[in-house]
Amino acid sequence: MTASRIALDVMGGDAAPEAVLQGALRACSDAARTRIEPQRLLLVGDEARIGSRLEELGGNPGFGVQHASQVIEMGEAPAQALRAKPDSSVAGCVRAVKIGAAGALVSMGNTGAVVGASTLGLGTLAGVRRPGIAVTLELTGHPTTFIDMGANIAPTPANLVQYAQMGTVYMRDCLALPSPRVGLLNIGEESSKGTPLLKEAHALLTESDLNFVGNVEGTDVFGDQADVVVTDGFTGNVVLKLLEGFSGFMLRLMLTELQRHDVQWGAQTLTNVRRQIDYAEYGGALLLGVDGIVVIGHGKSDAAAVANACGLAARALDAGVNAHIVAGLAG
Amino acid sequence: MTASRIALDVMGGDAAPEAVLQGALRACSDAARTRIEPQRLLLVGDEARIGSRLEELGGNPGFGVQHASQVIEMGEAPAQALRAKPDSSVAGCVRAVKIGAAGALVSMGNTGAVVGASTLGLGTLAGVRRPGIAVTLELTGHPTTFIDMGANIAPTPANLVQYAQMGTVYMRDCLALPSPRVGLLNIGEESSKGTPLLKEAHALLTESDLNFVGNVEGTDVFGDQADVVVTDGFTGNVVLKLLEGFSGFMLRLMLTELQRHDVQWGAQTLTNVRRQIDYAEYGGALLLGVDGIVVIGHGKSDAAAVANACGLAARALDAGVNAHIVAGLAG
Repeated sequence: MTASRIALDVMGGDAAPEAVLQGALRACSDAARTRIEPQRLLLVGDEARIGSRLEELGGNPGFGVQHASQVIEMGEAPAQALRAKPDSSVAGCVRAVKIGAAGALVSMGNTGAVVGASTLGLGTLAGVRRPGIAVTLELTGHPTTFIDMGANIAPTPANLVQYAQMGTVYMRDCLALPSPRVGLLNIGEESSKGTPLLKEAHALLTESDLNFVGNVEGTDVFGDQADVVVTDGFTGNVVLKLLEGFSGFMLRLMLTELQRHDVQWGAQTLTNVRRQIDYAEYGGALLLGVDGIVVIGHGKSDAAAVANACGLAARALDAGVNAHIVAGLAG
Repeated sequence: MTASRIALDVMGGDAAPEAVLQGALRACSDAARTRIEPQRLLLVGDEARIGSRLEELGGNPGFGVQHASQVIEMGEAPAQALRAKPDSSVAGCVRAVKIGAAGALVSMGNTGAVVGASTLGLGTLAGVRRPGIAVTLELTGHPTTFIDMGANIAPTPANLVQYAQMGTVYMRDCLALPSPRVGLLNIGEESSKGTPLLKEAHALLTESDLNFVGNVEGTDVFGDQADVVVTDGFTGNVVLKLLEGFSGFMLRLMLTELQRHDVQWGAQTLTNVRRQIDYAEYGGALLLGVDGIVVIGHGKSDAAAVANACGLAARALDAGVNAHIVAGLAG
């Protein structure tokens, strides 16, 4: 049971703890989809606050609770904050996974702190040099996994190949895509394009047994060219935030246009569009390569996003992502 | 007269020469907006093809024509192509500017070839180390200039500072924005964020007399945080293509939704939205820092985009962009 448990960082995120507690309850009320029963969640944070708020919300339905006396804020420098606050809620989540009280952790908190605490506290899987943040978006009618979206801003070519391998395993063994196509995010199709990092990674990927389809450009990402898009963590993070900003911008533009026509169904139309692009629907990012399932949610997550993040952790646990990665890298 | 002339690469682009010739005619028919009279354009390309096609279209209204016997294709490796084809249409455009037969050139052709031919053929402006591609988009109700969008994928910190300076001069002296805010595209707000390149550029920009507002993230680009967004050419090029792909994707999503409601005005709504994000409305990118006005249009440009690219070149010429840059860098 404990191995299937999910430690939830109640204190992490812009709207914590309220949105996280609401999200935990919401995940349980939608258990058929999220696979979350109350007993599956271990709430990590200020025990008194958690207890009293849950009382107000109708009582604790069966969540485990683990006290943590400290909170790492969103704006803190990760390394210093982790040193200065050994009893932070995110450190508590990592410890729960480390000692086997949980198999996964979910945090909407400071991304750098989650990556740092998880990597140092849990270690990497056998064969993995550097973990990578994988985000799966459904941009072309089926999922595409982008890796790395910010764990490692200065990867080596070998790191990029491992991101390709981990992304491939995830898509194949957890999302049931037989032979995922791997693309390398670059500024042109030719193998001679891009930085020295990308040229070398291109050569290594070409030699690998992955289904490497070559370089993909920003436009191709929306053209069903690849199932796994590999990039360095700097570019990946810029891309992720740009997509977020741009989708919000486009939706505002559309809303203005629809309002000009005084359209009653405009809001529903936008909701339908938003659903296809919104990170909140996908719950968050998986930090692939660490010895434990780690889901990093968006700092702005509301209750629905938190519930989906818990659902993502549950699916990753149930699919045995990490065993598949270890087997894939060994094979 | 010749200094205000624009050499137009008739053979460059996916739909050349047809779209380019149609664009030249279109620019003239909309002269109040584009500032293009037939005498202002010098068409560079296959003289016989240009002549016969213009005859079919009603005759040459007064364009100059300069013969070029070769064409650099979109997929060719720029450096090799420029060596192998000394009489290409893009090389002809550069020569026209070099000898003073024109003050500007416009090409929808191979971007690398345009950048390479212009930089080598025209040289850089006094004080400029590396040219940068500047794209001006109106994402937040007023223009934002992004630089560099792909001329230099391995800039130094000093290069980034010059991009900031050139972008500032362009926005201030050509787009009449009194004190343009400069942002550095990065993965976090803090000065400690990002690659060594960005940390050093942040320090240099902080010391400069520019209106530096610090790091901006992908989401901020749509939040009116900066008027000039500085980035390396690799990230810039990824960003530019991603925006293009994403806007097309969002518009397709919206169209599907509107069609579900059988909305007659849907097409117009989408046109209105597209107008605010479409590169074609802005005509293209300016290669800032070379000794001559160089406008790089999109390879997929249709006649309207070509006309707007010519209009951008005319405005840049009339505004004396390069004199302002030289004065700005010296001051």
